[in-house]
Amino acid sequence: MNVLIVFAHPEPKSLSASLRDVAVQELEAAGHTVRISDLHAMRWKSEIDRADFPSLAPDERLIPVAASKHAFSGDTLTDDVKAEIEKLLWADTLILQFPLWWFAMPAILKGWVDRVFAYGFAYGVGEHSDKRWGDRYGEGTLVGRRAMLVVTAGGWEEHYAPRGINGPIDDLLFPINHGILYYPGYDVLPPFVTYSTDRFDDARFEAAAESLRDRMRTLETTYPIPYRRQNGGDYHIPAMQLRSELSEPGASGFALHLKDAAASS
Amino acid sequence: MNVLIVFAHPEPKSLSASLRDVAVQELEAAGHTVRISDLHAMRWKSEIDRADFPSLAPDERLIPVAASKHAFSGDTLTDDVKAEIEKLLWADTLILQFPLWWFAMPAILKGWVDRVFAYGFAYGVGEHSDKRWGDRYGEGTLVGRRAMLVVTAGGWEEHYAPRGINGPIDDLLFPINHGILYYPGYDVLPPFVTYSTDRFDDARFEAAAESLRDRMRTLETTYPIPYRRQNGGDYHIPAMQLRSELSEPGASGFALHLKDAAASS
Repeated sequence: MNVLIVFAHPEPKSLSASLRDVAVQELEAAGHTVRISDLHAMRWKSEIDRADFPSLAPDERLIPVAASKHAFSGDTLTDDVKAEIEKLLWADTLILQFPLWWFAMPAILKGWVDRVFAYGFAYGVGEHSDKRWGDRYGEGTLVGRRAMLVVTAGGWEEHYAPRGINGPIDDLLFPINHGILYYPGYDVLPPFVTYSTDRFDDARFEAAAESLRDRMRTLETTYPIPYRRQNGGDYHIPAMQLRSELSEPGASGFALHLKDAAASS
Repeated sequence: MNVLIVFAHPEPKSLSASLRDVAVQELEAAGHTVRISDLHAMRWKSEIDRADFPSLAPDERLIPVAASKHAFSGDTLTDDVKAEIEKLLWADTLILQFPLWWFAMPAILKGWVDRVFAYGFAYGVGEHSDKRWGDRYGEGTLVGRRAMLVVTAGGWEEHYAPRGINGPIDDLLFPINHGILYYPGYDVLPPFVTYSTDRFDDARFEAAAESLRDRMRTLETTYPIPYRRQNGGDYHIPAMQLRSELSEPGASGFALHLKDAAASS
């Protein structure tokens, strides 16, 4: 299996980097091939701007969606972006590894998504009509592949619990798992999250490492988060509202988009 | 009133920029003073790395939280970050304006948060003990000030509805409104969101502009989102779990952290 790890921490001696090395070692020991996009080491450019679209005329208004579509279809994306797209097409499994900063990914990783997930590649794929609203949420370019987050959080696990003040970790990660990974077709595995990383000692590191090794050993067999496919019949098209019979009346929130939530209601 | 607009779109002729100008004109006509941090025009640096901490020794491991704490307390943050902190302390109201890319803010704005919201300024404020877990979520450096998001989304409004496939817009923005703005003390106003911006004509622009003008006229009187204060008695300390009597049994999700949710349950 080919595994791409996109890694976003500025310090090579960080806890994050040590966990990444644990994952790589375990994957390679199992015979998998691993490539790493170490965004800080690559000096990844985070911002979408005119420099991303060399074919845009100097006096032409930059409309990012239109420019992305034009550049992807005309093969004029910049070389750094093309290289990442090539890695994504090579990888059977994608791992995004990052510290949780302000309840989201660091800017450099968001910039990787903003720039690499081009129109025609990760969105804007498939027919858009009143019968079908694109190949997304369970369909699309990356269907049949797996993706997973590996996240380090400084705060306490309790604060990310279902009733914790930060909000439940699964809800905080939904915009990434569902909105960024499931959207272009990935099967998304439950995230690996380790907490209170500001207070790690050797024993806690080893426990986290062993848990991560186990997740790497089971990458191919772990059951994905059971999100609902957009075009699988659960949503009205093109309004994309969940059919009313699939949840309790008045129910709302991200959990509606899990098949299990319906089964248990 | 002093208003700071942090603006994150790469194109000066964009719909976002036109809406920004509408807001500025309305605020200035009402006698307010407006400053703008136009992140692309400023060539804002998005990534946290060693260059942010000139006082860090070359062979010292970069631990972002510790480095941020040290730099803020020792007044060794970089000049670009210091200038933004000064603007935040000047502003009675903060507006973050951005296009919603992949269900989150663009990388350049996330990088503004990551770098400007320093330890000791926006987090790590106040006593941390088993009796009190810091001044955050309704307390902190920026208490008594207001903040608001102005967001342009390419997708359909229906897709962001309570049962829409993207997830409800209020839940998608919760990590920003609650986790980034309420956390250091802001009163957070309901966001201004305009949809289907890929298909705007003059009539739709004028309708959006008039709605935004109204929001600017009522900045000082709009009722904030009624998030629960961390230290107001609603949470167990230090586990920060919402007290069980404050919601229905088994309730979960971001809406738990709204006072109204409790009142209506």
